[in-house]
Amino acid sequence: MDFLDEPFPDVGTYEDFHTIDWLREKSRDTDRHRKITSKSKESIWELIKSLLDAWSGWVVMLLIGLLSGTLAGVIDLAVDWMTDLKEGVCLSAFWYSHEQCCWTSNETTFDDRDKCPQWQKWAELMTGHAEGAGAYVLNYFLYILWALLFSFLAVSLVRVFAPYACGSGIPEIKTILSGFIIRGYLGKWTLLIKTVTLVLAVSSGLSLGKEGPLVHVACCCGNLFCSLFSKYSKNEGKRREVLSAAAAAGVSVAFGAPIGGVLFSLEEVSYYFPLKTLWRSFFAALVAAFTLRSINPFGNSRLVLFYVEYHTPWYMAELVPFILLGVFGGLWGTLFIRLGKYPVLEVIAVTGITAVLAYPNPYTRRSTSELISELFNDCGALESSQLCDYINNPNMSRPVDDIPDRPAGPGVYTALWQLALALIFKIVITIFTFGMKIPSGLFIPSMAVGAIAGRIVGIAVEQMAYHHHDWIIFKNWCRPGADCVTPGLYAMVGAAACLGGVTRMTVSLVVIMFELTGGLEYIVPLMAAAVTSKWVADAFGKEGIYESHIQLNGYPYLDVRDEFTHRTLATDVMRPRRNDPPLAVLTQDSTTVEDVETLIKDTDYNGFPVVVSRESERLIGFVQRRDLTLAIKNARQKQDGVVSSSVVYFTEDAPQLPASNPQPLKLRRILNLSPFTVTDHTPMETVVDIFRKLGLRQCLVTRSGRLLGIITKKDVLRHMAQMMNQDPESIMFN
Amino acid sequence: MDFLDEPFPDVGTYEDFHTIDWLREKSRDTDRHRKITSKSKESIWELIKSLLDAWSGWVVMLLIGLLSGTLAGVIDLAVDWMTDLKEGVCLSAFWYSHEQCCWTSNETTFDDRDKCPQWQKWAELMTGHAEGAGAYVLNYFLYILWALLFSFLAVSLVRVFAPYACGSGIPEIKTILSGFIIRGYLGKWTLLIKTVTLVLAVSSGLSLGKEGPLVHVACCCGNLFCSLFSKYSKNEGKRREVLSAAAAAGVSVAFGAPIGGVLFSLEEVSYYFPLKTLWRSFFAALVAAFTLRSINPFGNSRLVLFYVEYHTPWYMAELVPFILLGVFGGLWGTLFIRLGKYPVLEVIAVTGITAVLAYPNPYTRRSTSELISELFNDCGALESSQLCDYINNPNMSRPVDDIPDRPAGPGVYTALWQLALALIFKIVITIFTFGMKIPSGLFIPSMAVGAIAGRIVGIAVEQMAYHHHDWIIFKNWCRPGADCVTPGLYAMVGAAACLGGVTRMTVSLVVIMFELTGGLEYIVPLMAAAVTSKWVADAFGKEGIYESHIQLNGYPYLDVRDEFTHRTLATDVMRPRRNDPPLAVLTQDSTTVEDVETLIKDTDYNGFPVVVSRESERLIGFVQRRDLTLAIKNARQKQDGVVSSSVVYFTEDAPQLPASNPQPLKLRRILNLSPFTVTDHTPMETVVDIFRKLGLRQCLVTRSGRLLGIITKKDVLRHMAQMMNQDPESIMFN
Repeated sequence: MDFLDEPFPDVGTYEDFHTIDWLREKSRDTDRHRKITSKSKESIWELIKSLLDAWSGWVVMLLIGLLSGTLAGVIDLAVDWMTDLKEGVCLSAFWYSHEQCCWTSNETTFDDRDKCPQWQKWAELMTGHAEGAGAYVLNYFLYILWALLFSFLAVSLVRVFAPYACGSGIPEIKTILSGFIIRGYLGKWTLLIKTVTLVLAVSSGLSLGKEGPLVHVACCCGNLFCSLFSKYSKNEGKRREVLSAAAAAGVSVAFGAPIGGVLFSLEEVSYYFPLKTLWRSFFAALVAAFTLRSINPFGNSRLVLFYVEYHTPWYMAELVPFILLGVFGGLWGTLFIRLGKYPVLEVIAVTGITAVLAYPNPYTRRSTSELISELFNDCGALESSQLCDYINNPNMSRPVDDIPDRPAGPGVYTALWQLALALIFKIVITIFTFGMKIPSGLFIPSMAVGAIAGRIVGIAVEQMAYHHHDWIIFKNWCRPGADCVTPGLYAMVGAAACLGGVTRMTVSLVVIMFELTGGLEYIVPLMAAAVTSKWVADAFGKEGIYESHIQLNGYPYLDVRDEFTHRTLATDVMRPRRNDPPLAVLTQDSTTVEDVETLIKDTDYNGFPVVVSRESERLIGFVQRRDLTLAIKNARQKQDGVVSSSVVYFTEDAPQLPASNPQPLKLRRILNLSPFTVTDHTPMETVVDIFRKLGLRQCLVTRSGRLLGIITKKDVLRHMAQMMNQDPESIMFN
Repeated sequence: MDFLDEPFPDVGTYEDFHTIDWLREKSRDTDRHRKITSKSKESIWELIKSLLDAWSGWVVMLLIGLLSGTLAGVIDLAVDWMTDLKEGVCLSAFWYSHEQCCWTSNETTFDDRDKCPQWQKWAELMTGHAEGAGAYVLNYFLYILWALLFSFLAVSLVRVFAPYACGSGIPEIKTILSGFIIRGYLGKWTLLIKTVTLVLAVSSGLSLGKEGPLVHVACCCGNLFCSLFSKYSKNEGKRREVLSAAAAAGVSVAFGAPIGGVLFSLEEVSYYFPLKTLWRSFFAALVAAFTLRSINPFGNSRLVLFYVEYHTPWYMAELVPFILLGVFGGLWGTLFIRLGKYPVLEVIAVTGITAVLAYPNPYTRRSTSELISELFNDCGALESSQLCDYINNPNMSRPVDDIPDRPAGPGVYTALWQLALALIFKIVITIFTFGMKIPSGLFIPSMAVGAIAGRIVGIAVEQMAYHHHDWIIFKNWCRPGADCVTPGLYAMVGAAACLGGVTRMTVSLVVIMFELTGGLEYIVPLMAAAVTSKWVADAFGKEGIYESHIQLNGYPYLDVRDEFTHRTLATDVMRPRRNDPPLAVLTQDSTTVEDVETLIKDTDYNGFPVVVSRESERLIGFVQRRDLTLAIKNARQKQDGVVSSSVVYFTEDAPQLPASNPQPLKLRRILNLSPFTVTDHTPMETVVDIFRKLGLRQCLVTRSGRLLGIITKKDVLRHMAQMMNQDPESIMFN
């Protein structure tokens, strides 16, 4: 019996920082499936096992939904509490946030819902004085101190325990989903540290969001649950199907947008997304959203984060400011991507500066989500916000929700100034914050920048319409006494534009914004802004922030969206190049174990083509370096008579050799008999297409049946970089 | 100069009922794009032309959206008018429908909005008597007569002018999008006749919907606008990108659901759906939806068809009836697919029977969309429908919208009986109607079946809860005086379940239902029903109605969702089989024109591999039969000295022959130098994957560089049919 009939460990696995072979993974899964199906006819127990196997996908989805929803809820609650802890503490129960503290005390009326005796600011608690310059300075100082403490903890935890926990994680997840191996990136340790440090980082008041990192957290959950089922843990291809769905669940809990999450995963993150995964992703996304809702961190029973209800439609003429906001969003995206690439400053320093500058301005002091929520809001009669300080016409008594246009009061003008300062501050500080070595997302800060700009534009248009009813552009839709401009809508459009400029999302952006706000009527303004911002940003550079970070890190990511339109052929890209030494090949029946070992030692290729003979150069298969090393090591240890001078046979039957000759080593079992080949005349665009769609690791090049060379994924990426006048050496891994 | 340097007409086109080669189309488009880009640097005019070319995709989308939205609006208006024409006529303006007629007359109050003096039933108009048995019989008779007239016109128009206009068209569109050519299927003539006959068929009162055919209409619009731009008209691959987007626009106008439309196109219809198309489809879908809304056929300013607003949440215990509705939906789907395959009866007969049986029952007499709309509705205080005839408790005065649970009045019990009869009638008649030779869709009839069943279940549960508050299952959520069961929600869930059972849609179904009704809160009941109905229906047969019709017609459709899990290899599928004559090949430099012509005459293969020589069998390329025929015909006509004994050269340079030899024919230009090859050991699952993902037409099989055989798409499909124990001869086209 040939020992190779039994599989030996680790054959068919991959090394760290290498690319997987999708076709091989898929075919391994089919084998596994076939085995289970044929076994299931043998006994009831095997039948049950096969049913469990068939259902394991749904179980994993359910678990992912439950865990990521729970984690998102816990993170939300913890962030609420710790953000408020910077300002004060709840006397009745220190683990209550400001809102919960005053909510449980029944004494407060609707207007004073922010003020209750149980909640005390630090100055009041320590000195007894709630007002005055001394109390302000003390509160200010403690605010900064808490912020520094939180960010110090966050940065230390990340640095010491899990360096992979920093950033948003989305570029790496994209790369992993495209078939790259980064061990530990989605591990338990990363999950734990990322969750804790995310809370710390957001609470410290830095200009970053938790939405991107939540996708990473959800993917870690997905990876964790994969290990429960060998179907997923032992197959890198199947594992990635689960991770795609987990990414959808992550976005779903980040925004309360299950459909948007699935589309985000499909459009932005995933690489291989079969339709079966679509349905499962949707399931995971829904479970996650409902788990989060049952924990109810937003305090309302809505599924959505920023629920808005506007009472007026939009008008065609408003498309002009909306498109201008789109342009602003595109420029913001370009600026952010250009400058956000090079993080230079220290986390602690940035936290200090952020805290010092943020505290005095009410719009930067509060948490960014609260800010966005307020900016999106329409001014109803009950609204107590400074932004809604309009001068009411006492002669008119109208229903609560139907407020006609009014002149702005002094509060609105103060708010305008503060918003303008907040805009500049947010722009500068967000650029410095992203890319620091702590968990940080860009969705919410980008949306905040857009929302501030949008609200400013909205108020300007509104007041212009009020004071100039007779202007030709306002005449048709802004008669006196009618409510015509909704500044909150401008904020929403601005937020969408800025988010679009940075990420270059399209359909998923519109769907997320629409789910986030619940407004189907405003889909056209959102689209107009999203399209404009994408076009403007694309004019300055085709890559969104994630692609730009992938490139910066040199990951071997083959983007499905890059069109390859150059006229090169496979022969121009394959190795060996002209003047290079000839291709390292094995022959099917004339290479010795020693030859193979020398070849492995002298080269660092991931695999070797096997040919009939060096003269005919006719290809018969391809063998992986890793499998070859393992097989020879195994054989030397376990199989008698295999020595350095043994001949390695890749043929079906090794010839009967005289007893004096050393025992042959039969390795047909590890030979891939269906290596992918193209002819040397194949246009590179076709080759790129094949690599993308089939997820190849390498491809052999032939002419009239003779082996000429090899093209690896890295060669393809290098060639593409070269064609786009980029440095081909920026592609770093295999 | 070689005449072949100039392209000659028709090279690279396809014959009717043949499959396209996606890779070739793609590479042709890249060539075109490259030419335009390089030319654009030459002059301003060329630059403008290149910009126009780049924008033509968006222009086509805009035009598709505008035209399909307009057509949908016109169809809606015409159907409204003609449906009412069966009952009576508007005296003030005969082109007004009942609703418009009474709407324009200002005399009516809200309660009597259906009754106004201008609208007269036929009996009243002809005899002066509006009431009585005589008038009823006359109205009944005329109703049937109109119905017969409409369906006679519809069936005659389809039969005489455009046989492709019958059915829903979605199976054929799926096949076309997968790369099959059916000339005229999306032509102008089909568009015109389908639009007219669709109105006639729906108005005749047959149990069919206009939603599926609207997808066909939108695709015809897409094809029409393709012909404006050579980028799309001359490239079958690019054309299909436009058609995918058009399908999304079609669903968008059918339901007022742009996001659902895009997902439907992605999940259900499309084959090759690059991300760029996603965004464009969304644009087309939105433009179409807004065009339709500005025509405003639904009479309200909502974008959605069946807008509902429920005031109570759903409870966990209700999942049981929802899942039961899902089971019903799955059974309905199975029944419909099994029996709907064999249309036997005549259109006129079915119309007659439908009209005779439908008229007496108020729930079948009205149009199906109105019926669904009423079934979905929650019973507010203002509702005058018989379904809302509850006994009010006079002691309670509650706000209008918040009605606690009440016992059903006699009207509800009458309605229950009528609904039960309507359910049986709809089930039977829908099965007989679908597949008849007129335009017919199944969305609305299926939804009606489900909605009726759902409403019946809903009322039953509601009354059970009212009369048995103390039962353990109702105890927690149905206290006396509280509104706990919404029968309209059950109707909605039932509709989703039945639609899901027939079409096997998943995510797109939930999104369409959600957009259709505007209710994000009810996504879990919808999903539960959709999942159950899909599982139940799948247990009886994996195919939805579209796949079943594709199979029935023998179209060569390679479904992306079928998993191929058998252990066969390429060598088992390729031709020639053992004992077959050897593969028909050409040699690169030893075949004469006469040999080629004989080969073309004797075989009906679509193309021939070209090898170095018959002995070495080393492959150098592949040549299409069509191109070969055209090239030889052209050469014989235009090139001097090409005679039957001329040698055909596929090599780079033809040798210098003595003048006495006949002129050689150089055909390298039509030779595909990069034919797709796999080895004979490649597992068939990989081959299937390659065919699917790369959209191949054929693939050559080699072993150690020697050509062994060929696998065409038809071979793959036949093999798959065989493996699933189906008749391989059911695959009919190439």
